[in-house]
Amino acid sequence: MFVILVYDTAAERNPTVLMTCRRYLHRTQRSVFQGELTAAQYRELTSALSTAIDPEYDSIVTYTARSPGMIDSTTIGVHLGGPGDIL
Amino acid sequence: MFVILVYDTAAERNPTVLMTCRRYLHRTQRSVFQGELTAAQYRELTSALSTAIDPEYDSIVTYTARSPGMIDSTTIGVHLGGPGDIL
Repeated sequence: MFVILVYDTAAERNPTVLMTCRRYLHRTQRSVFQGELTAAQYRELTSALSTAIDPEYDSIVTYTARSPGMIDSTTIGVHLGGPGDIL
Repeated sequence: MFVILVYDTAAERNPTVLMTCRRYLHRTQRSVFQGELTAAQYRELTSALSTAIDPEYDSIVTYTARSPGMIDSTTIGVHLGGPGDIL
Protein backbone atom coordinates (compact mmCIF):
# COMPACT_ATOMS: atom_id res chain seq x y z
CA MET A 1 0.00 0.00 0.00
CA PHE A 2 1.02 3.60 -0.53
CA VAL A 3 1.33 5.58 2.70
CA ILE A 4 1.47 9.31 3.40
CA LEU A 5 2.25 10.14 7.02
CA VAL A 6 2.03 13.58 8.63
CA TYR A 7 3.11 14.16 12.21
CA ASP A 8 2.65 17.00 14.68
CA THR A 9 4.45 15.97 17.85
CA ALA A 10 6.16 17.75 20.74
CA ALA A 11 9.79 18.73 20.03
CA GLU A 12 11.18 16.31 22.60
CA ARG A 13 9.54 13.35 20.84
CA ASN A 14 10.36 14.46 17.28
CA PRO A 15 13.72 12.59 17.08
CA THR A 16 12.08 9.26 17.99
CA VAL A 17 9.19 9.82 15.60
CA LEU A 18 11.58 10.86 12.81
CA MET A 19 13.83 7.87 13.34
CA THR A 20 10.86 5.49 13.36
CA CYS A 21 9.33 6.99 10.19
CA ARG A 22 12.69 6.92 8.39
CA ARG A 23 12.96 3.18 8.93
CA TYR A 24 9.87 2.71 6.74
CA LEU A 25 9.26 5.80 4.60
CA HIS A 26 11.06 8.69 2.92
CA ARG A 27 10.64 12.29 3.88
CA THR A 28 8.92 14.70 1.51
CA GLN A 29 8.50 17.71 3.77
CA ARG A 30 9.60 18.71 7.26
CA SER A 31 6.80 16.71 8.88
CA VAL A 32 5.63 14.53 5.99
CA PHE A 33 6.75 11.07 4.93
CA GLN A 34 5.60 8.80 2.15
CA GLY A 35 6.36 5.40 0.70
CA GLU A 36 5.14 1.95 -0.18
CA LEU A 37 4.68 -0.55 2.62
CA THR A 38 3.26 -4.01 3.02
CA ALA A 39 0.29 -4.29 5.37
CA ALA A 40 2.62 -5.89 7.93
CA GLN A 41 5.14 -3.02 7.71
CA TYR A 42 2.33 -0.50 8.06
CA ARG A 43 1.13 -2.22 11.23
CA GLU A 44 4.68 -2.29 12.61
CA LEU A 45 5.13 1.41 11.88
CA THR A 46 1.84 2.55 13.41
CA SER A 47 2.38 0.28 16.40
CA ALA A 48 5.88 1.72 17.00
CA LEU A 49 4.55 5.27 16.66
CA SER A 50 1.66 4.60 19.02
CA THR A 51 4.10 3.79 21.80
CA ALA A 52 6.47 6.66 20.90
CA ILE A 53 3.97 9.51 21.14
CA ASP A 54 1.88 11.07 23.86
CA PRO A 55 -1.65 10.39 22.56
CA GLU A 56 -3.03 13.27 24.65
CA TYR A 57 -0.77 15.81 22.99
CA ASP A 58 0.72 14.51 19.72
CA SER A 59 -1.00 13.79 16.44
CA ILE A 60 -0.04 11.55 13.54
CA VAL A 61 -2.27 11.18 10.50
CA THR A 62 -1.75 8.51 7.86
CA TYR A 63 -3.39 8.40 4.46
CA THR A 64 -3.22 5.08 2.66
CA ALA A 65 -4.13 3.97 -0.84
CA ARG A 66 -3.88 0.57 -2.43
CA SER A 67 -1.27 1.78 -4.91
CA PRO A 68 0.75 4.96 -5.56
CA GLY A 69 -0.91 5.23 -8.99
CA MET A 70 -4.15 6.26 -7.26
CA ILE A 71 -2.59 9.43 -5.87
CA ASP A 72 -0.96 12.33 -7.69
CA SER A 73 1.53 14.49 -5.85
CA THR A 74 2.39 18.09 -6.72
CA THR A 75 4.87 20.41 -5.04
CA ILE A 76 4.59 24.19 -5.04
CA GLY A 77 7.82 25.90 -4.04
CA VAL A 78 10.69 24.00 -2.51
CA HIS A 79 10.81 20.28 -3.15
CA LEU A 80 12.23 18.94 0.11
CA GLY A 81 12.59 15.28 -0.59
CA GLY A 82 11.90 12.32 -2.76
CA PRO A 83 12.55 8.62 -3.16
CA GLY A 84 16.28 9.34 -3.35
CA ASP A 85 16.20 10.43 0.27
CA ILE A 86 15.51 6.98 1.69
CA LEU A 87 17.99 6.48 4.53
CA MET B 1 -11.26 15.30 -6.63
CA PHE B 2 -10.07 14.60 -3.10
CA VAL B 3 -7.20 16.84 -2.01
CA ILE B 4 -4.71 16.57 0.87
CA LEU B 5 -2.54 19.65 1.26
CA VAL B 6 0.50 19.99 3.52
CA TYR B 7 2.34 23.27 3.92
CA ASP B 8 5.67 24.27 5.38
CA THR B 9 5.94 28.03 5.03
CA ALA B 10 7.71 30.86 6.86
CA ALA B 11 5.78 32.16 9.91
CA GLU B 12 5.10 35.55 8.33
CA ARG B 13 3.31 33.92 5.40
CA ASN B 14 1.37 31.34 7.43
CA PRO B 15 -1.72 33.56 7.99
CA THR B 16 -2.17 34.12 4.24
CA VAL B 17 -1.60 30.44 3.43
CA LEU B 18 -4.02 29.40 6.19
CA MET B 19 -6.70 31.82 5.06
CA THR B 20 -6.36 30.67 1.45
CA CYS B 21 -6.51 26.98 2.34
CA ARG B 22 -9.51 27.50 4.62
CA ARG B 23 -11.49 28.96 1.74
CA TYR B 24 -11.30 25.59 -0.02
CA LEU B 25 -10.45 22.84 2.47
CA HIS B 26 -10.81 21.87 6.13
CA ARG B 27 -7.94 21.51 8.50
CA THR B 28 -6.98 18.10 9.85
CA GLN B 29 -3.68 18.92 11.51
CA ARG B 30 -1.66 22.06 12.26
CA SER B 31 -0.27 22.19 8.73
CA VAL B 32 -2.56 19.76 6.90
CA PHE B 33 -5.81 20.39 5.06
CA GLN B 34 -8.10 18.09 3.14
CA GLY B 35 -11.34 18.21 1.21
CA GLU B 36 -13.15 17.65 -2.05
CA LEU B 37 -12.66 20.17 -4.83
CA THR B 38 -13.59 20.49 -8.47
CA ALA B 39 -10.69 20.67 -10.89
CA ALA B 40 -11.40 24.41 -11.27
CA GLN B 41 -11.32 24.99 -7.50
CA TYR B 42 -8.07 23.05 -7.25
CA ARG B 43 -6.50 25.25 -9.93
CA GLU B 44 -7.75 28.41 -8.14
CA LEU B 45 -6.31 27.21 -4.84
CA THR B 46 -2.89 26.24 -6.18
CA SER B 47 -2.72 29.42 -8.22
CA ALA B 48 -3.53 31.57 -5.15
CA LEU B 49 -0.95 29.69 -3.08
CA SER B 50 1.71 30.03 -5.77
CA THR B 51 1.49 33.81 -5.51
CA ALA B 52 1.26 33.78 -1.69
CA ILE B 53 4.45 31.86 -0.97
CA ASP B 54 8.15 32.42 -1.50
CA PRO B 55 9.00 29.54 -3.87
CA GLU B 56 12.66 29.70 -2.82
CA TYR B 57 11.84 29.09 0.83
CA ASP B 58 8.32 27.70 1.32
CA SER B 59 6.96 24.31 0.37
CA ILE B 60 3.42 23.11 -0.25
CA VAL B 61 2.68 19.53 -1.27
CA THR B 62 -0.71 18.41 -2.54
CA TYR B 63 -1.86 14.82 -2.92
CA THR B 64 -4.92 14.30 -5.08
CA ALA B 65 -7.12 11.30 -5.81
CA ARG B 66 -10.16 11.02 -8.00
CA SER B 67 -12.41 10.27 -5.03
CA PRO B 68 -12.11 10.19 -1.22
CA GLY B 69 -13.02 6.48 -1.32
CA MET B 70 -9.58 5.74 -2.76
CA ILE B 71 -7.81 6.97 0.37
CA ASP B 72 -8.15 5.78 3.95
CA SER B 73 -7.24 8.14 6.75
CA THR B 74 -6.18 7.10 10.26
CA THR B 75 -5.25 9.28 13.22
CA ILE B 76 -2.91 8.20 16.02
CA GLY B 77 -3.18 10.44 19.06
CA VAL B 78 -5.01 13.76 18.96
CA HIS B 79 -7.59 14.19 16.25
CA LEU B 80 -7.25 17.86 15.41
CA GLY B 81 -9.98 18.38 12.90
CA GLY B 82 -12.54 17.02 10.53
CA PRO B 83 -15.25 18.00 8.12
CA GLY B 84 -17.06 19.82 10.94
CA ASP B 85 -14.25 22.35 11.05
CA ILE B 86 -15.00 23.89 7.67
CA LEU B 87 -15.08 27.67 8.16
